Amino acid sequence: MWNHSRLLELLNISHPIIQAGMAGGVTTPALVAAVSNAGGLGTLGAGYMEPEVIRENLQEIKNSTRKPFGVNVFIPEFPNATEEEISRVNQLLQPFRNELGIKDVTKPQIDESLFEKQIMVIKEQQVPVCSFTFGIPDKDVVQDLKKEGIVLIGTATTVEEAILNEQYGMDAVVAQGSEAGGHRGTFLNPYSESTIGTMSLIPQVTDQVNIPVIAAGGIMDGRGVRASMVLGAEGAQLGTAFVTCEESGAKPQHKAAILHTKETETVLTPSFSGKPARGIRNTFMEKMEGHESELLDYPLQNSLTKGIRKEAAIQDRPEFMSLWSGQSPRLSRTGSATEIFQSIVSQAERINS
Amino acid sequence: MWNHSRLLELLNISHPIIQAGMAGGVTTPALVAAVSNAGGLGTLGAGYMEPEVIRENLQEIKNSTRKPFGVNVFIPEFPNATEEEISRVNQLLQPFRNELGIKDVTKPQIDESLFEKQIMVIKEQQVPVCSFTFGIPDKDVVQDLKKEGIVLIGTATTVEEAILNEQYGMDAVVAQGSEAGGHRGTFLNPYSESTIGTMSLIPQVTDQVNIPVIAAGGIMDGRGVRASMVLGAEGAQLGTAFVTCEESGAKPQHKAAILHTKETETVLTPSFSGKPARGIRNTFMEKMEGHESELLDYPLQNSLTKGIRKEAAIQDRPEFMSLWSGQSPRLSRTGSATEIFQSIVSQAERINS
Repeated sequence: MWNHSRLLELLNISHPIIQAGMAGGVTTPALVAAVSNAGGLGTLGAGYMEPEVIRENLQEIKNSTRKPFGVNVFIPEFPNATEEEISRVNQLLQPFRNELGIKDVTKPQIDESLFEKQIMVIKEQQVPVCSFTFGIPDKDVVQDLKKEGIVLIGTATTVEEAILNEQYGMDAVVAQGSEAGGHRGTFLNPYSESTIGTMSLIPQVTDQVNIPVIAAGGIMDGRGVRASMVLGAEGAQLGTAFVTCEESGAKPQHKAAILHTKETETVLTPSFSGKPARGIRNTFMEKMEGHESELLDYPLQNSLTKGIRKEAAIQDRPEFMSLWSGQSPRLSRTGSATEIFQSIVSQAERINS
Repeated sequence: MWNHSRLLELLNISHPIIQAGMAGGVTTPALVAAVSNAGGLGTLGAGYMEPEVIRENLQEIKNSTRKPFGVNVFIPEFPNATEEEISRVNQLLQPFRNELGIKDVTKPQIDESLFEKQIMVIKEQQVPVCSFTFGIPDKDVVQDLKKEGIVLIGTATTVEEAILNEQYGMDAVVAQGSEAGGHRGTFLNPYSESTIGTMSLIPQVTDQVNIPVIAAGGIMDGRGVRASMVLGAEGAQLGTAFVTCEESGAKPQHKAAILHTKETETVLTPSFSGKPARGIRNTFMEKMEGHESELLDYPLQNSLTKGIRKEAAIQDRPEFMSLWSGQSPRLSRTGSATEIFQSIVSQAERINS
């Protein structure tokens, strides 16, 4: 049902459907394996994971599938913040901590060697595919991974970012449209210039790069996958579509929120992490509005809000959680990952015929 | 090459491609007639036109084509502004007037009977298709036009707006994604909630309404038209794609700007008219940034900036003009409207086969 494509061959998969490597525990080994077993590419969202956690997850994935899968990691950033800046954000966050009864105020922390350790595990474990968000790895990392036969996928939100991904040796690139849930992958252009709708982004990117392009942003079903290919992409990456499945490790409140949200209810906010990300509007976002310039840079802001998000989930207070979602929540569904995957494929098949 | 569709039958056209009814002189009778003669639906953008000007334009169109065409008009709004609010905006605009040597400061004006007079000409001239932006006409206007056999097309930027269009008797609805150039058609939801990417908007709208849906926003070529249909639309409306053609009445600076713009260079701004509209970032937008809350409501703001935009075009100062463009300017082309139209159709044809 799919035309032969470089992407299918490159990734050694049957269907050009990639489950996005969402961080924060959404992408359980069961989810990753189910998507890969169904003929797509499951991806472990390892952006925030310690190397030993990645290793455990990979072991579980390998026990559940013999098909190719991917691991997504974040290109690291090391911003600074003065004590004054930190205490100003802590003041902003205090009302939420009070509401949740959080006493300890954690210091913002960055593990400067995390990325290096993640890459070591990825090499050691011979992961078939490694994808990157928030930038492009250094040339030596690229060479190292390629030497191991690992396929590399970058992320771009503009044409120029896609061109850079190609120049730096990525084997394929995800073009992330403004509809996408979760974090913007932007790393070159300013964020304000980098929210290009998927319908605009894909053809403009495919006209300018030679590597396979994977469309992302607002794609939830067979219509979106097929439309992506018509626009010139060789595959589609879906995140929100899999957040609500049984195998997803997303918090129940997060799943429920997506299932009951309208397309008008998501917002791009930097308030949780310091980087703009799309999620369902809630009290936390609203109260933080207008304070954008006071936030710490990613990942410091993320580190400061972590306790709040965690405790909010425990106390069932979704109004303080990061409820990431793309702009197509009306298309969300329950069911197993396999069921969702197969319904996407069979819908795409019907459109083809 | 196109599957039979209700939209093709409704509009009595051969190709499901509608040239958007852009106001401000872009849609010359030659452009409208060329698109209709090529088998699509040309549309006269009559939003700001006096009835006698519409009549003249329609006469010219009818002299150039026997095919169906459309006229687009704006649902009127009658906001108020105090002398103080007006003088505050005039102060904001004074630097631009100084730069251009504009002495006269015009009073903001609204012709309260303009819409009524426009509808009368549309009925009198037996226009085949009438489309609306910024809202839905009253039931009696709908009935009146339908009695004349005129096909009615509404504009929606959210699912709820699309549902309302259907409920109020529109025969089809344009679903305008966030990529679209020019004014947002939003009338129900707040603007901030109504910038849904085309890839997300189309399937969510088509799932919720029964009337034919026409996709708009970022569509410039055969890939976009075909992708729209895959997403569930029965046709596509293209604006920016025709601004740069020979028959377009857009100012030369406007055409040149689109042809040399990247996808990262457009912005949604209310600064020209009081309503958010997407155009190429320039000095006027930048200087007006941060003053959004001081602007007069549409169309009062539009009336105040009119002299500046007009004089800027005369003096070749594109930095003060409204350079409307969607998010796909890299796909823009020169040539006649017929050439552009035919290349869209033949690209769509190649994708089909």
